[in-house]
Amino acid sequence: MAEQPELTIQGWGPAGSRVATVAAREGADGPDDGVLELTADPDVTQTLPKAARRHLSRELGWTPRSTPPVPVRDIELAPSRLPAAARTALVELLGEENVADDRTTRLTHAGGKSYLDLLRRRVGDASDAPDAVLTPGSTEQTAALLQMCSDLGIVVVPFGGGTSVVGGLAGSDADDRPVVAVDLGRMSTMQALDVPSSLVTVGPGMRGPALEKALATEGLTLGHRPQSWEFATLGGYAATRSAGQSSTGVGRFDDLVAGLTLATPAGVLELGKPPASAAGPDLLGLALGSEGTLGVITELRLRVRPMPRTTAYEGWSFRSWAAGLAGLQRLARHDLLPDVVRLSDPDETRVTLLQATGTGSRALRAGLRSRRHGQGCLLVVGWEGLPTIVRARQRAATSVLKDGGAIRLGRRVGAAWQRQRFAAPYLRDRLLDAGLLVETLETAATWTALPRVYDAVRRALHDSLARPGRRPLVMTHLSHGYPTGASLYVTVLADRDDDLPIQQWLTAKRAATDALLAAGGTLTHHHAVGVDHRPWLSQEVGPLGVDVLRAVKAQLDPQGICNPGVLLPD
Amino acid sequence: MAEQPELTIQGWGPAGSRVATVAAREGADGPDDGVLELTADPDVTQTLPKAARRHLSRELGWTPRSTPPVPVRDIELAPSRLPAAARTALVELLGEENVADDRTTRLTHAGGKSYLDLLRRRVGDASDAPDAVLTPGSTEQTAALLQMCSDLGIVVVPFGGGTSVVGGLAGSDADDRPVVAVDLGRMSTMQALDVPSSLVTVGPGMRGPALEKALATEGLTLGHRPQSWEFATLGGYAATRSAGQSSTGVGRFDDLVAGLTLATPAGVLELGKPPASAAGPDLLGLALGSEGTLGVITELRLRVRPMPRTTAYEGWSFRSWAAGLAGLQRLARHDLLPDVVRLSDPDETRVTLLQATGTGSRALRAGLRSRRHGQGCLLVVGWEGLPTIVRARQRAATSVLKDGGAIRLGRRVGAAWQRQRFAAPYLRDRLLDAGLLVETLETAATWTALPRVYDAVRRALHDSLARPGRRPLVMTHLSHGYPTGASLYVTVLADRDDDLPIQQWLTAKRAATDALLAAGGTLTHHHAVGVDHRPWLSQEVGPLGVDVLRAVKAQLDPQGICNPGVLLPD
Repeated sequence: MAEQPELTIQGWGPAGSRVATVAAREGADGPDDGVLELTADPDVTQTLPKAARRHLSRELGWTPRSTPPVPVRDIELAPSRLPAAARTALVELLGEENVADDRTTRLTHAGGKSYLDLLRRRVGDASDAPDAVLTPGSTEQTAALLQMCSDLGIVVVPFGGGTSVVGGLAGSDADDRPVVAVDLGRMSTMQALDVPSSLVTVGPGMRGPALEKALATEGLTLGHRPQSWEFATLGGYAATRSAGQSSTGVGRFDDLVAGLTLATPAGVLELGKPPASAAGPDLLGLALGSEGTLGVITELRLRVRPMPRTTAYEGWSFRSWAAGLAGLQRLARHDLLPDVVRLSDPDETRVTLLQATGTGSRALRAGLRSRRHGQGCLLVVGWEGLPTIVRARQRAATSVLKDGGAIRLGRRVGAAWQRQRFAAPYLRDRLLDAGLLVETLETAATWTALPRVYDAVRRALHDSLARPGRRPLVMTHLSHGYPTGASLYVTVLADRDDDLPIQQWLTAKRAATDALLAAGGTLTHHHAVGVDHRPWLSQEVGPLGVDVLRAVKAQLDPQGICNPGVLLPD
Repeated sequence: MAEQPELTIQGWGPAGSRVATVAAREGADGPDDGVLELTADPDVTQTLPKAARRHLSRELGWTPRSTPPVPVRDIELAPSRLPAAARTALVELLGEENVADDRTTRLTHAGGKSYLDLLRRRVGDASDAPDAVLTPGSTEQTAALLQMCSDLGIVVVPFGGGTSVVGGLAGSDADDRPVVAVDLGRMSTMQALDVPSSLVTVGPGMRGPALEKALATEGLTLGHRPQSWEFATLGGYAATRSAGQSSTGVGRFDDLVAGLTLATPAGVLELGKPPASAAGPDLLGLALGSEGTLGVITELRLRVRPMPRTTAYEGWSFRSWAAGLAGLQRLARHDLLPDVVRLSDPDETRVTLLQATGTGSRALRAGLRSRRHGQGCLLVVGWEGLPTIVRARQRAATSVLKDGGAIRLGRRVGAAWQRQRFAAPYLRDRLLDAGLLVETLETAATWTALPRVYDAVRRALHDSLARPGRRPLVMTHLSHGYPTGASLYVTVLADRDDDLPIQQWLTAKRAATDALLAAGGTLTHHHAVGVDHRPWLSQEVGPLGVDVLRAVKAQLDPQGICNPGVLLPD
């Protein structure tokens, strides 16, 4: 496996393997001591334990059926619309080997990995593929490329790992201009490490595993591990304001960016002055979350930290979702949240427990039932750091959790979560093969608004996706915790409407988004806006807020070539 | 004393008292258990202990002389230039009682409290006073006022506590239009408290002491305590990106703002969605540090936290500045920095120790000398929080400090610093009375660049301010610490050039700023840009960065009425 393998075209996992294998080199105590082998068999009957399959069938009114994707060779791809003169100019700038318009390259850069992306790719639709893929090697080349494309009227979509789940790589343009993807794969190395200042300088195309490997030799870590960790790039994290699974402790990706270089059609911006500055408004914060609409991030300075000397992951159970939320809120108020916090609601807890196999898991389920936690909520918590401080924090948190009625399930549950932390997107492909709708959405709200938002989203999804004899399964967990609130991550499963699958999801998504905004949630906590959320951006930041973003864009990208299909509403 | 007393016109302290008295209701264990009474006698010989006075005279080549300010009645004030029609329209909008153009009101709203501000006011110059002072009572009134002033061509300078030390309230305008100050004193209450979400909603004119008092009844605290705490407003902290003395622990003010309302000539922006969002670039970060150039902050949502159950402040000594920096850098890398960190360089340490009186302090000085720390660096550290966690953090930090060669001086030194934490601006007035130049400046840099920046600033100030028989005293401390670096706070004392005092400081300030930027420091860590730093903004954020800020301003303030004299270079 190459150090930075490409994603397969129609699903998740390294390109070339339909039967994906998770080889995330990460285990309980660091990145290098365990290899998780989840064999995601194309047959869903082999992927899910029988009990889980039975539960899903009963809940959803779903009978597994075979709905495989079309062969890759049958995916339709229109001829490249890149004008010959433009191609020549770009080749002159970047070299022939860095301007690709062959079928495979265009297909591997078509869209991202949302449910809608996968639906399209699985039926052979690649209408969102770029007309060509450029691979600049430096900030200077990227800036020149942007200026050239601005002059030539060519749309530019930055491409990192291609893992967007909100249509961030749609490449659509109201004026229907040719589109190039700018793949940052050539700018993917660690360029400098300032150990005393805990700062590393990296190329935007570098990925988490490669960076962690390089940092490990110095006893350091970045610690940012979202579910897309194996494939997403550092530049992509910055462009989308990502949050990792330990973000409660190490912070959102925003918090880890000390500075970055943004190449724009109007020139190059060097943003961020670590450790902190009061020299005017924060311009770095304009680049974070700009999703390619202002230019291309060509370099990042990130905050690193020593590898934790100890890690402690464990499972707990609350008797109810309300009790779980109350317990975490108390921890949050007192700055006692662990570094990893993940509270599953009863629906998610049930499926999680059914997915576990073996005598240990049967005993766990029986134990929970006997203590009247049979409809309870699973909590996974994790602490990382110096042993003495971890112990003190853990003791204080334990006492709050126990006061809130939680019971401790031990380290085995924590270890099981750690082993499976990157597995969900692999499993999704198998569920798609078997006739299911599978998608996620997420939001965040204050602790006060959180229960309302939770109820509103569930109700909206249920109402939208229920059909005679069918109903969705809506599983939610609280992930990232903050003193002021927390995020909610929702996984939706439903029997797919094979006639109008896209319409089925768009309707449900619209209902859920309207509901969560009305209840006080944010449009997105860490997936970004992309195409999928842009109709609601004005509701989130106000029409004047959108005007401000447009004014910034007009300054940096006067021809509107930078990823025009995303973020800003038409 | 009124709950929110106005500052005296020509110096620091509550209006009406030339002999100021610090009555900061804050002691070692919370806001209400101690009252520090520092009698700042107009005679400097009574304010400074003899040893300190002797040391200063010797160091500076300065002989105390009496240079008192002119009587307030002798301050020159030009007639208000507010057109009668504009005054009538504003009265109609706000009511007669909220449009003031009397002499006292205009004088109390003239400029801020920088050395240059005080020099002008002390010689009777109030040419920067506004033509009138408006006091709107709501967001709606403020927005209407801004639109009206935009239509009428009247410059608006928001006025909180009037504590700017960078010329943030200069009210200057290239087009020489009439200027009104918008005093936020009527919008100064706590409006809502969401305890589960740790969020408080406040008016921008509220000050720290009033908010802390209101929060204390709920067992909560904001915890933001800069030196200007008694007078500065919460809106002002946001507009200038303030940092408090415990910011290493509780965060910069930026980190405490979950949301705010910004009234602009183009409409009202509601910014920030707690706890966190990935819905596009961070627009809240554009309002923070905007220094009134985009509009007026009319409401804030701030993060609060439980009052710490325990606080532990203590003193340490390092044998040298380099050893001190290295020790703190090691703490920072391992996330072990205490909540308060303040490392004085040898020059500041010497004066601090000489300012202390009594047998205890004599014994301390002797003890330090005997352990070869006579030229050492004083470190004050403070921890706050739950006792068990404070103990664990304190133990871990202690071991790092000892490994770095530091010796512990105990709690008495920490308590002495706490008692004096708001005293410096009072003392400054007395030193100004006695013929001194007294000013501060600050910056921040990565741990790697910090020693360079320190040397460069000192050298520049020495070179600029030395005259035959005279030399400046440049005292520096590291305050706010971060994993990636720290801030430096520099106090400069010199014999004042009574002929050209303004020129004397402008020359020194220019030299220091050029030097710190060249060495890798930031233009300002927490004082903001104002008039004083705006010539360097383009160097800090690049010409394209300035263009972006201008584009945002043009969108929100098309007539350029919002505090045009500050932040953005002409």
